[in-house]
Amino acid sequence: MITSTANRHVKWVRALQTKRRVRQAEGAFVIEGIRLAREAVAAQLPAHLVLHTDHLDSRGRGLVHNLDRLGAEVKVVSDAVMAACSSTESPPGLLAVLPIPALPLPAQLNLALVADRLADPGNLGSLLRTACAAGVEAVILTEGTVDPYNPKVVRGAMGAHFRLPIEILDLNTLLERLAGLEIWLAEAGEGKPYTDIDWRRPLALAIGGEAHGPQPALRSLAKGQVHIPMMGISESLNAAVAAAIILFEIARQRGAT
Amino acid sequence: MITSTANRHVKWVRALQTKRRVRQAEGAFVIEGIRLAREAVAAQLPAHLVLHTDHLDSRGRGLVHNLDRLGAEVKVVSDAVMAACSSTESPPGLLAVLPIPALPLPAQLNLALVADRLADPGNLGSLLRTACAAGVEAVILTEGTVDPYNPKVVRGAMGAHFRLPIEILDLNTLLERLAGLEIWLAEAGEGKPYTDIDWRRPLALAIGGEAHGPQPALRSLAKGQVHIPMMGISESLNAAVAAAIILFEIARQRGAT
Repeated sequence: MITSTANRHVKWVRALQTKRRVRQAEGAFVIEGIRLAREAVAAQLPAHLVLHTDHLDSRGRGLVHNLDRLGAEVKVVSDAVMAACSSTESPPGLLAVLPIPALPLPAQLNLALVADRLADPGNLGSLLRTACAAGVEAVILTEGTVDPYNPKVVRGAMGAHFRLPIEILDLNTLLERLAGLEIWLAEAGEGKPYTDIDWRRPLALAIGGEAHGPQPALRSLAKGQVHIPMMGISESLNAAVAAAIILFEIARQRGAT
Repeated sequence: MITSTANRHVKWVRALQTKRRVRQAEGAFVIEGIRLAREAVAAQLPAHLVLHTDHLDSRGRGLVHNLDRLGAEVKVVSDAVMAACSSTESPPGLLAVLPIPALPLPAQLNLALVADRLADPGNLGSLLRTACAAGVEAVILTEGTVDPYNPKVVRGAMGAHFRLPIEILDLNTLLERLAGLEIWLAEAGEGKPYTDIDWRRPLALAIGGEAHGPQPALRSLAKGQVHIPMMGISESLNAAVAAAIILFEIARQRGAT
């Protein structure tokens, strides 16, 4: 059993949890808990490393067994070490280091989401989870957006990372990838009400950062702006909530719900 | 200038920030930052106490002046004291202790929201903010729901506390208050798709806790269950996001958006 935080595996996990540049350099990130581990196994992702405590239930032990068979190095750790490795206040019984998935973009995109300089990890996590549920086929993040493999994003996304292609692109490459799609920008109070747009054509919905909305360069490339009418003057919506409302209106119009 | 956390005002604020029973006993709660202070002034709520640092900008000083005129006791505090009083990692320049608002329920409710044992303060805050924007007229919390005056809820709700009647009720009283309304329960995968229901009648939408959905006693009183169809099998939505999607479908059908 690993009982020291000076252990090299433990140091590696802690660096991956806290440093974006380490995640990028290693092409790896950390998932915590039974639910995400189950999704990783379902996606047949070969974990590099699994750390677990010695009081897993049978479900947890089964998952460790499956991760082991997929090629992971498995180590038992003390509760204190698990707490030091975890990004949450209530550490899980197991966590795993996974390769950052490289899911291919569909050849023909019908619905893409652009998160433009979204800074809040809770918002991005929620946005990814919602995008998956709404049938989004790819998520493009502009530079300046919080790292999608940040532990808080991973936790909030509830497995979206295993099912949804996620790419971080500069604006030029973004435009190449989204060629042929109408780009609509969600902006508070600007443009058309979201229920007045025909959403059945192939399109990308762009959600701007909480503070400033979409960047001007993106604005100049867009087909138009879209907003959600509010019932009161000083009302507003969280970026992830606003995206959810528009994405499910798109799904409704496309007959998916 | 107050420089000690042993000061009685500081101790009071810290107790209000961290202890639900103190908030309940005092009928008071804390707001942080310019934006919420501006909303409190707009609502003409007489703050009990304002603490601020000595490097407020002119906008902040104007707000302190207005809060002073509404009857607040105003104290300058050191940065360290402000940090000790704040619930955030980046403390604001001012905070205020306010009486818990007692907004009356409309005589005739057309749209109410029930949050049933929602445990996550971020979710409840987001739910309150969204409810305001969607035209909800009252929010009922069942016992077991996180305190709506918890600092994280207050922060996420972005001023909804000043505009939306919020009541914590046992099930019997809840039923009395909601007499005449159809109660619809949001439950993952259960009942009708949310786009197949006629939402134009007076109604209450009930959102259950993240872990278990609405409680059985509430289920037995409901007109029906409603869900949001997902594009994939293992998809799900955050409780606050699911509520937002249904609330804005209600607004859409009612012609409000």
